[in-house]
Amino acid sequence: MKNSVTLQTPPMGWNSYDYYDTMVSENEIKANADFMAEHLKEFGWEYIVVDIQWYAHGAGTMRDKHQYIPFGKVEIDEFSRLFPCPDRFPSSVGGLGFGPLAEYIHKLGLKFGIHIMRGIPRIAAHTHSKVMGTNKTANEIADPYSICSWNPDMYGVIPEAEGSQEYYDSLMDLYADWGVDFIKCDDICRMDVPSAKQEIKMLKKAIDRCGRPMVLSLSPGPALIDESWHYTTHANMWRITDDFWDDWKYLLPMFKRCEIWQRHVGEGNYPDCDMLPVGMVGKGFGNERPTRFTREEQITMMSLWCIFRSPLMIGGELTLLDDWTLKLLTNREVLKLLTNSEGARQLLRDDHHCIWLSYDKQDDKRYLAVFNLSEEECSIIINPDLVEIHSFNDLILTEIWSGTTEICKENQLTVSLPRHGASIYCY
Amino acid sequence: MKNSVTLQTPPMGWNSYDYYDTMVSENEIKANADFMAEHLKEFGWEYIVVDIQWYAHGAGTMRDKHQYIPFGKVEIDEFSRLFPCPDRFPSSVGGLGFGPLAEYIHKLGLKFGIHIMRGIPRIAAHTHSKVMGTNKTANEIADPYSICSWNPDMYGVIPEAEGSQEYYDSLMDLYADWGVDFIKCDDICRMDVPSAKQEIKMLKKAIDRCGRPMVLSLSPGPALIDESWHYTTHANMWRITDDFWDDWKYLLPMFKRCEIWQRHVGEGNYPDCDMLPVGMVGKGFGNERPTRFTREEQITMMSLWCIFRSPLMIGGELTLLDDWTLKLLTNREVLKLLTNSEGARQLLRDDHHCIWLSYDKQDDKRYLAVFNLSEEECSIIINPDLVEIHSFNDLILTEIWSGTTEICKENQLTVSLPRHGASIYCY
Amino acid sequence: MKNSVTLQTPPMGWNSYDYYDTMVSENEIKANADFMAEHLKEFGWEYIVVDIQWYAHGAGTMRDKHQYIPFGKVEIDEFSRLFPCPDRFPSSVGGLGFGPLAEYIHKLGLKFGIHIMRGIPRIAAHTHSKVMGTNKTANEIADPYSICSWNPDMYGVIPEAEGSQEYYDSLMDLYADWGVDFIKCDDICRMDVPSAKQEIKMLKKAIDRCGRPMVLSLSPGPALIDESWHYTTHANMWRITDDFWDDWKYLLPMFKRCEIWQRHVGEGNYPDCDMLPVGMVGKGFGNERPTRFTREEQITMMSLWCIFRSPLMIGGELTLLDDWTLKLLTNREVLKLLTNSEGARQLLRDDHHCIWLSYDKQDDKRYLAVFNLSEEECSIIINPDLVEIHSFNDLILTEIWSGTTEICKENQLTVSLPRHGASIYCY
Amino acid sequence: MKNSVTLQTPPMGWNSYDYYDTMVSENEIKANADFMAEHLKEFGWEYIVVDIQWYAHGAGTMRDKHQYIPFGKVEIDEFSRLFPCPDRFPSSVGGLGFGPLAEYIHKLGLKFGIHIMRGIPRIAAHTHSKVMGTNKTANEIADPYSICSWNPDMYGVIPEAEGSQEYYDSLMDLYADWGVDFIKCDDICRMDVPSAKQEIKMLKKAIDRCGRPMVLSLSPGPALIDESWHYTTHANMWRITDDFWDDWKYLLPMFKRCEIWQRHVGEGNYPDCDMLPVGMVGKGFGNERPTRFTREEQITMMSLWCIFRSPLMIGGELTLLDDWTLKLLTNREVLKLLTNSEGARQLLRDDHHCIWLSYDKQDDKRYLAVFNLSEEECSIIINPDLVEIHSFNDLILTEIWSGTTEICKENQLTVSLPRHGASIYCY
Repeated sequence: MKNSVTLQTPPMGWNSYDYYDTMVSENEIKANADFMAEHLKEFGWEYIVVDIQWYAHGAGTMRDKHQYIPFGKVEIDEFSRLFPCPDRFPSSVGGLGFGPLAEYIHKLGLKFGIHIMRGIPRIAAHTHSKVMGTNKTANEIADPYSICSWNPDMYGVIPEAEGSQEYYDSLMDLYADWGVDFIKCDDICRMDVPSAKQEIKMLKKAIDRCGRPMVLSLSPGPALIDESWHYTTHANMWRITDDFWDDWKYLLPMFKRCEIWQRHVGEGNYPDCDMLPVGMVGKGFGNERPTRFTREEQITMMSLWCIFRSPLMIGGELTLLDDWTLKLLTNREVLKLLTNSEGARQLLRDDHHCIWLSYDKQDDKRYLAVFNLSEEECSIIINPDLVEIHSFNDLILTEIWSGTTEICKENQLTVSLPRHGASIYCY
Repeated sequence: MKNSVTLQTPPMGWNSYDYYDTMVSENEIKANADFMAEHLKEFGWEYIVVDIQWYAHGAGTMRDKHQYIPFGKVEIDEFSRLFPCPDRFPSSVGGLGFGPLAEYIHKLGLKFGIHIMRGIPRIAAHTHSKVMGTNKTANEIADPYSICSWNPDMYGVIPEAEGSQEYYDSLMDLYADWGVDFIKCDDICRMDVPSAKQEIKMLKKAIDRCGRPMVLSLSPGPALIDESWHYTTHANMWRITDDFWDDWKYLLPMFKRCEIWQRHVGEGNYPDCDMLPVGMVGKGFGNERPTRFTREEQITMMSLWCIFRSPLMIGGELTLLDDWTLKLLTNREVLKLLTNSEGARQLLRDDHHCIWLSYDKQDDKRYLAVFNLSEEECSIIINPDLVEIHSFNDLILTEIWSGTTEICKENQLTVSLPRHGASIYCY
Repeated sequence: MKNSVTLQTPPMGWNSYDYYDTMVSENEIKANADFMAEHLKEFGWEYIVVDIQWYAHGAGTMRDKHQYIPFGKVEIDEFSRLFPCPDRFPSSVGGLGFGPLAEYIHKLGLKFGIHIMRGIPRIAAHTHSKVMGTNKTANEIADPYSICSWNPDMYGVIPEAEGSQEYYDSLMDLYADWGVDFIKCDDICRMDVPSAKQEIKMLKKAIDRCGRPMVLSLSPGPALIDESWHYTTHANMWRITDDFWDDWKYLLPMFKRCEIWQRHVGEGNYPDCDMLPVGMVGKGFGNERPTRFTREEQITMMSLWCIFRSPLMIGGELTLLDDWTLKLLTNREVLKLLTNSEGARQLLRDDHHCIWLSYDKQDDKRYLAVFNLSEEECSIIINPDLVEIHSFNDLILTEIWSGTTEICKENQLTVSLPRHGASIYCY
Repeated sequence: MKNSVTLQTPPMGWNSYDYYDTMVSENEIKANADFMAEHLKEFGWEYIVVDIQWYAHGAGTMRDKHQYIPFGKVEIDEFSRLFPCPDRFPSSVGGLGFGPLAEYIHKLGLKFGIHIMRGIPRIAAHTHSKVMGTNKTANEIADPYSICSWNPDMYGVIPEAEGSQEYYDSLMDLYADWGVDFIKCDDICRMDVPSAKQEIKMLKKAIDRCGRPMVLSLSPGPALIDESWHYTTHANMWRITDDFWDDWKYLLPMFKRCEIWQRHVGEGNYPDCDMLPVGMVGKGFGNERPTRFTREEQITMMSLWCIFRSPLMIGGELTLLDDWTLKLLTNREVLKLLTNSEGARQLLRDDHHCIWLSYDKQDDKRYLAVFNLSEEECSIIINPDLVEIHSFNDLILTEIWSGTTEICKENQLTVSLPRHGASIYCY
């Protein structure tokens, strides 16, 4: 069948990057998992994802000069496979890798994910390290010209080289042994190098072969719309934006991106709007701060991600979540969009506002999301023919962020919104 | 409502361009219409479309130097609106325009379409001609920098200028009066100039206002996949390729184009693979010939157009159609794909072959199209998991081009195809 | 011989654009000519150039919407040739064109120049106007696809078309009759359309044929360095920058441009740094103002233009020149760089400063120009090996802007400069 | 002073690449040097250059798959500096490097050159190898993102990093110790990565510091004409073309390249047209052959290289030179163009022919080179004004390839040339 994992709804979870950068440790992962199990799990949140450079010794120690230290020491086995750095992940010693941490998370009823970089460690190629299950060595499958433009750790593999598929197979076998449920592969989605397209296919094949269902998530974006079929066929999630952060200049363009990708959302396939930089973020980047988004912008972001049905990955540190943010993330009516709605489509978008419509087949309800993209508060008048009804008159509308219900008394619907704000009506 | 015309299935018809270039005359149009009414109508073919430069005096008289004579005389009214050249369309005299010809075609039970160029005639701008229903003149709405890169007749309009929408309104009112059912607007789809995007919207608005349902078809391609929402919202058909001709070098890339656009096919919205250059073509281009496509290539083309659900417009001269071609165009089982199937999707495409699957909800049948893209005849083995069934064993399969039915006796399906050939199985 | 005009030194003059935009009149031209004759001529200034749209009726009357009114009325003869608009140039009536104005200027001992646009008036093509000395009409030589991206008046000609060279010949014959000494042809230098390259050659041929020496100046820039041979062979001046204005953001990049073009300066060939926006500028643009350049920036500009040996064209209104600016433009020692120096070359350029060296063969003197490109005042230490001498010690140096002379008492030369300032040493 | 080496005329020599690819050995170098000393030296030929990968073990052993074996073993010292592979350069053992080979060549009265790649060996960065004269290690100065697009051996250095200049200094000190006279640095001229511009400057600085005059030659081309000042200031030769080979498709575009660069030729600065693929070439590429150039094409090539004053580097194996080729390379009159002429400039170039004029100040002679670029033999008529004389009549002309002298009896000069042929007239 098409995907070895069945994802009836978009994945929901937490990712270490926005708060910890490269520096997260085992205890910090556990603390976030504990928090999720206690406060978020019941609302559908379940993935705990360790992001980039868990294998790097001294990660973050030269943060003023390098996000990723060039030619730094990495934890690696004899088969060219990276392992968690034991300084930060002490339970990994003795060749256990992420097994014990995954087990801890599974016991909480949650799922465990890791970040990987496309390719094979550069050091493995230069030292002619082995490739498991073959008589090949890393230098025979590594492509010295296939490098990532922003991280110095890996070489891409040569898809045609004997041993390349076996290398990816050996990785997925290892991750399956560890109990990994979610793979976020980086430096691959945007296809910066031509072989990346083939490497996506090789990853998918390796996951199918390994026997354990694992979600395949591709980064960074923007994904190429011309390659939508390739993503849909071989992956579960793919980033439709470059790294997303807490600034309106990143949020505004997401409306165009969602417009472009709206027809590619469906079971097992979720174009990905990237992490939610809410609560406390930025510590590892030397800039710990509450999110710079206003409350209205956070509502706008959540509304768009949910009606579009993007995966939801919290970027802020869970143990520091304030009440308002916790409520933002646990509004059951809003999260229903993610789980129950289908066929969401943009009805209108101009410089000032944007309107989406979606449908909940189970409850036979419509969701109408209205966004104010302008720099001023505004009133938007919506004609019934835009939403393909005859009149708004007498329609009972519930705004699901506020929970307020009203009976519309006019043919048109008038929506008043603050600057950068949004409302979602259910009817 | 979204489109003023309801197109439950892709339009099917004939277009004068591939055979006549700019030189078609009224009698030739009628002869093709007569043929269609007698031989093709019952299979769903219904549109007769007059392509480019019906307004140009002397069209084709400098064919060795120019396809479109620069600064040539055009037939135009006092309101900057082009009219059929009376030399070639004598019934148009006395201000009747295409009215009498449309009436002739309607009496045959067919529909009538015309080609137009984006914008307003250059000569109208230079002579300060009027814009109907306004106190503006053509020079006030024409954009002297907005020209077509391959035809010298028009200037684009300035969307923001007062009088621009009224100009397009006055065109559509005129065409509605004439009885036009189908507008093919050129120099607009690919958005070669920035204002083209707005001009699409203005055309749609003018059609909605004019009161007559008219199909809006946009040319030339390739359409921009990033603007899929704009096409879907404002047009019925949009060309996904530049001009298509009878050579494998044009047919092969259509597979990638159909891959890209497959999710954008639906009621009222048909990404357009362009005319079918079958039968006799090329006369107006000084190169009259039977199509250069082999029979296998024609079957491949029809199979792709039909399972993808492209509009079908015959490019060859109808009165010269040979029997084989007539049968190609009137295979009821194949045409059912166009009218009854939905959700067609590409299952696989590589350098050698391509496979599509579609579904006929009404008859609960599946269509499996298999294409040989290679330069040799080949045998393709299809595993059941590719088409999401458990086994091919005992499945009754009808190949709808040949009409042969067989019971598959193996778990896999083996398809043998000639070079550039195709088969479609129904089960 | 190579150029029909001998330009032993770069042209010096005044151009109407920076102050008047499209709106200059005959009396204003005369007033500037009078001023030049009285105050500037003795320093070498001699050209009076009427810039763009002298042929346009109503030029500037829609300045809030258009710099150049689309489809506006132009003064034109039966042979498709533009004439001065008699409203602004009353002496041109009766077919005299610029003859009387040229005569006026010649009597002052000055030279007369005009601006033209590449190509033939659009209106001539649309009305099938004649081409002098041929049986061709404008529509036969005009290229409907060859338009200027910022001015709507002309179509480029088709170089291969019979009649095209004759058209340019007829223009130059007319200008020779008028007594024109200088042609500034616009929309041609940057070769925005492919035919522009050929049109440069056609213009040169027409000038050579007409019998009157006329300087050929090409606009707008940046000229293409890859085509340096073409400019050198066929023109006298060519703009190496897009329109230059009174802002440091335009002046700073000129240092790189002069670096690139330094080897292409020589007798009859002058890469052109564009007009000097000094004194009062901007009136026609609705923004009359004293130049925004600081005095230091003006000295820097004049120093670079002079050591590089760019043509010098004053952009400000001459009758409003203040004393300081008049002195800036009439420093005999500085202007000697233009007339007497040769072989100027950049010795050094970085983010902070730039140094040029030139040589006056006649007086056996060296000129050393030192520029402060930084945002702070600075001290620059120059080692003798940079300027290829053994030591600065005991060298007598005259700074030619201030006129101060000193004997250097150190091996190195230390130059202190204000922000954006310059000094030129002669030794 | 500007260049630590004075090059009054363009370098002339032999380079191992065109015949040996990466595989040349010490004895082969010596054999070519012996030949040069005996047969070519007296004509000005003097450089013997060892081209790419003299440091690589096993170079050429995987030639079917790789020109440069990825992650192959290289000969390297503790200070990250590459040494000759002792298998092919046995005299280098014991840390002597190229010293003994240089000495051998010097004893023949010739000069010795080597090829290097921009940057520091990748393996040095990954193993944290030392940088001489500093407390830095290779990983601290290597840029993991700065790779060559076609050779896998090196990383570029970070210009701003402490230790980077010292690394290049340590290389040039070593080469000076060896007795190197000529450095051909590759992956630097075209500035494929931004730091290459700075690395050129660092190389020049290191050469100036090392005390030994060494020619600095930059590859590959095409050099960037916008950076002409940078090349002129910091290098002696720079390639104006990508790799040049024995096919007219490479020779024809050289005329445009020479046009572009003609003003940048001068003492110490020679834009470089690349090696002359004459005689036997291609052995190391698995395609040993006599040059594919016709004799006429070889004369054309030599004529252009000589009048333009490109460096001349023979690419064919010297010991296999046939008599005709030897004569081609040793025509004293032709080589005088290289040594004595100046101010060469293109007079004319179109699709059919090209004409250059140069001047020999010492002998007060002019050289007129005429090229037939067309696919047919042709007769070219040259008017006297093109070459700035009054008439050809009675002029005594010597064609220096044939040595024939004639007195011109017409005002014009008529030159008959075979397809792709050339003549050079001296008068």
